[in-house]
Amino acid sequence: MDIIEELRKCRERDIPYSRVLSSMCTVPHPVALKAHELFVETNLGDPGIFVGTRELEDRVIRLLGELLHNKECKGYISSGGTEANIQGIRSARNLKRVRNPNIVIPKSAHFSFEKIGDILGVEIRRADLDENYRVDTSKVEEMIDENTVAVVGIAGTTELGQVDDIKTLGELAMERDVFLHIDAAFGGLVLPFMNKKIPFDFEIDGVSSITVDPHKMGMATIPAGGILFRSEKFLRALEVETPYLTSKYQFTLTGTRPGTGVASTYAVLKHLGYDGMREIVQRCLKNTRILVEEMEMIGFEPVIEPVMNVVSFHCSEAERIKEELYRRRWVISTIRNPRAVRMVIMPHVSEEIIKEFVAELKQLLH
Amino acid sequence: MDIIEELRKCRERDIPYSRVLSSMCTVPHPVALKAHELFVETNLGDPGIFVGTRELEDRVIRLLGELLHNKECKGYISSGGTEANIQGIRSARNLKRVRNPNIVIPKSAHFSFEKIGDILGVEIRRADLDENYRVDTSKVEEMIDENTVAVVGIAGTTELGQVDDIKTLGELAMERDVFLHIDAAFGGLVLPFMNKKIPFDFEIDGVSSITVDPHKMGMATIPAGGILFRSEKFLRALEVETPYLTSKYQFTLTGTRPGTGVASTYAVLKHLGYDGMREIVQRCLKNTRILVEEMEMIGFEPVIEPVMNVVSFHCSEAERIKEELYRRRWVISTIRNPRAVRMVIMPHVSEEIIKEFVAELKQLLH
Repeated sequence: MDIIEELRKCRERDIPYSRVLSSMCTVPHPVALKAHELFVETNLGDPGIFVGTRELEDRVIRLLGELLHNKECKGYISSGGTEANIQGIRSARNLKRVRNPNIVIPKSAHFSFEKIGDILGVEIRRADLDENYRVDTSKVEEMIDENTVAVVGIAGTTELGQVDDIKTLGELAMERDVFLHIDAAFGGLVLPFMNKKIPFDFEIDGVSSITVDPHKMGMATIPAGGILFRSEKFLRALEVETPYLTSKYQFTLTGTRPGTGVASTYAVLKHLGYDGMREIVQRCLKNTRILVEEMEMIGFEPVIEPVMNVVSFHCSEAERIKEELYRRRWVISTIRNPRAVRMVIMPHVSEEIIKEFVAELKQLLH
Repeated sequence: MDIIEELRKCRERDIPYSRVLSSMCTVPHPVALKAHELFVETNLGDPGIFVGTRELEDRVIRLLGELLHNKECKGYISSGGTEANIQGIRSARNLKRVRNPNIVIPKSAHFSFEKIGDILGVEIRRADLDENYRVDTSKVEEMIDENTVAVVGIAGTTELGQVDDIKTLGELAMERDVFLHIDAAFGGLVLPFMNKKIPFDFEIDGVSSITVDPHKMGMATIPAGGILFRSEKFLRALEVETPYLTSKYQFTLTGTRPGTGVASTYAVLKHLGYDGMREIVQRCLKNTRILVEEMEMIGFEPVIEPVMNVVSFHCSEAERIKEELYRRRWVISTIRNPRAVRMVIMPHVSEEIIKEFVAELKQLLH
């Protein structure tokens, strides 16, 4: 099989995770890889065949629901955060049929919301942020009108790891009777394991749905996104009939879909338990502090004091530095407003890697 | 790691493919599994990191394009046929902005088009079929109006494996200047390897885009769908900006997405070559004929003479028989119009399995 040799050569041209400080994905946990292998043939799009895998998905959703303060939530493991966000907004749109639907999202929301607006035919209204880069809830309130089908809050912004004031957004959602979707694709598996408690999930009454991606901080294999709804009626708003399958209805966006994400998510959560997850999250947070200290020593200042393991540093030459580092096979990313370099301190980013990286960055600056 | 033991027990409750005659998926080819393993960490959502995997995707698209008579086509490996169909229709809709868009599809189109209509806010017009269960092209013509953004043709219907008259649909599309999307999710990797040549792909001028799923007859690992566009402009209609990634634009529906489908598709196509693929397709067709003969011997009549390796048999008690077989851990499916039992003769469905299955079906009837 020399085709495998050819593929290995391709794969070697990829940059290894040990040089990647820009990604919200990471090296899967070893137990995730084992679980993945066991389920590589499975297809959750045909649950009458994959009976065992289907039940496992229910258990995964219950585990995630327990963690996010709602054992009764309904949902599924999706192809990723974009599908999860599409489905949250689609449910909201379908439950409140209006001619020109809009959603109010923070300016800090992930770029994929533009894609979602295009796909679903929903106008995107981006509310300004306050001085801490959290959405200004008074601006959100002003933007809501009779055609608003959902408000979105972010728990772990892509650029800064900031968490919106979900409590106030929840009150607003209740008052104005509007669907509240939380994009916790990243933060959903960080916030529950932090010492500082920041409310963001179903414990806040107004929250209707949450995106939480096991293939980010859950160390599951790709693809493993997650969409959780407070109750069944929200999931029902997504259903279509499935005449030739072993099930009668389908609420997922995709048809055929792998069971690997379900298995690897379950494996990691059960193998590590809350204590093991807390340990990994705490290490990422500690490494984030180390990175901040090291960066401060060479003259960089964080845009905000990091809330979780995402941090951006003011830098007028962010693009040039990113490109220079990329030539040396280090990957970081940049943000535009304010101009800054951005890093995500995932489980694969060790203290050693951080020191090596900062040393090379320092060299490059002189 | 006793968690793996627990997962193994779940997995054992799934029905093995050796008892499945209803699915358009199959056991992945061994070379696909090897390729999959090698790429299990990859994320094509971040092509600046996964440079080698990204290039491999270009090669896969070129391979598929060559097979479907357009080396210059543009596209990508998607999460499956539904994403591919969404993206085809979304491109069409975005290129012809009208207030109340509609698409004209055959009544035989896959149920996921209902989902697509809901997601994209596009009215679905289902054209009647002729006596051979191909779309009646004169009905399609009647249904096209100024708000029609696309016409859809099916190359390998889910229920009967029938192929629409794509040539006439192509002429219609040219005449009426409308986008023509071909759903060849199943047939796209069957038709090129059949002795009888049935035109369905880019060799027909009017065809704008094609869905072709390697995780069906391509024996790749799930998820591996495919969307191919005749030229770049169609792909461009899907782009959004990606501020924090290593690329500038994203045209995929999902963000983070595995490279496993790309690697396993490439591995199978290159390892088997056209000759190897032809051999597998021919064996499936031969086994389909064997199934038809065996079924006729116990009194069943096919709805149409099978075109490819999908076949339905008239059966007034289709539902009862399906359920009875399911209790014995055999999986088939049913269709409603006409009432029939349906089988798909994938590479895992050997002559031996067919004989065992028909023997048990015969027993059950008496």
